[in-house]
Amino acid sequence: MSQQEASRALFLVFEGGEGGGKSTQSRMTAEWLRAAGRTVVQTRQPGGTAVGARLREILLDPATGVLDPRTESLVYAADKAEHVATVIRPALERGEVVVCDRYVDSTLAYQGAGRAIDAAELAQVSAWATGGLRPHLTVVLDIDPRVGLLRAGGTGHDRIEAEPLAFHQRVRRHFLDLAAERPADYLVLDADRDPQAIQADIRAALLGVAT
Amino acid sequence: MSQQEASRALFLVFEGGEGGGKSTQSRMTAEWLRAAGRTVVQTRQPGGTAVGARLREILLDPATGVLDPRTESLVYAADKAEHVATVIRPALERGEVVVCDRYVDSTLAYQGAGRAIDAAELAQVSAWATGGLRPHLTVVLDIDPRVGLLRAGGTGHDRIEAEPLAFHQRVRRHFLDLAAERPADYLVLDADRDPQAIQADIRAALLGVAT
Repeated sequence: MSQQEASRALFLVFEGGEGGGKSTQSRMTAEWLRAAGRTVVQTRQPGGTAVGARLREILLDPATGVLDPRTESLVYAADKAEHVATVIRPALERGEVVVCDRYVDSTLAYQGAGRAIDAAELAQVSAWATGGLRPHLTVVLDIDPRVGLLRAGGTGHDRIEAEPLAFHQRVRRHFLDLAAERPADYLVLDADRDPQAIQADIRAALLGVAT
Repeated sequence: MSQQEASRALFLVFEGGEGGGKSTQSRMTAEWLRAAGRTVVQTRQPGGTAVGARLREILLDPATGVLDPRTESLVYAADKAEHVATVIRPALERGEVVVCDRYVDSTLAYQGAGRAIDAAELAQVSAWATGGLRPHLTVVLDIDPRVGLLRAGGTGHDRIEAEPLAFHQRVRRHFLDLAAERPADYLVLDADRDPQAIQADIRAALLGVAT
């Protein structure tokens, strides 16, 4: 990758609980960056590759039932490994923008805070899967799970959404803790607002960085 | 688990390249142990659980195409985690015999020796997946891959069998190296012989240990 391409590359991640509007904000952000002339790869985890889509199906299918926590973490890690190696890293090497719906923090929040599994070991497995690749900026769309789950759900909850409220509250706390540890790498936004207002905050933060 | 149950538990693994007769010898060994009055769980990796069967399908399906080596390792590790947590460990805790077709050494041999991936990191991921559980005895059914692949294949090679011969030769070497490192934990047998003769060697080794 040339110096110029490297300097243009931007890896932007959207994180947060269910119903915070990650896919809406990912799409709006990608559209805005494209209008500003950038080449944008909009993608998501799990499921951003052919094999990832099959792994995502296993993870979210209610018929899968209870998985051992290590199994679940390793399936998520496998999805990440494939996604980073075949989608994210190549795009960044071409100097493009990658906008990704969920990344390592979701694993840490859902498997680490949500279920009983050692946080340091989990971080190590995730780091191995991704070859240590971290986003330039993570936008946390923060929302009270009582609001978020209502927005996300209605009928047909998937295997993760069907977890009890206390699980989702621990997940929310974990995202906020991760952001507090590295404030320069995070933008935490109140997601219980009009999507246009949230998007305006994101554009303000990215102005000059991404465009 | 009571002391008596713990002392009866036996975890027996069959390893080796394609066409060495692992499934035949697993079956014959399980039948012999059952006839001797033991409760035997006969199983395999990948695919010994419901989710494992779906992961196995992804791993062996030629349509999956080339996977990033870390992805492949992590999918195998996920299969192992579920298998150990829900099948192998519970059976051992009941004082039973577990006869398993492939285990951690297959990962080390196929992903470590076969593909370009750091052996120590791979061992660490596998150990995390299995919670460090090791077999009491590993039987390596050793065979020249030129013989083994002919036996295994004919038509309809899966994604692993379709690898070039040099890959299978490195895999064979790796199994033998692992056995040489811990000779007390391994039984290496020439698998290019009559199945009854191979089975007789296995029974001789297990006599008194398993029955």
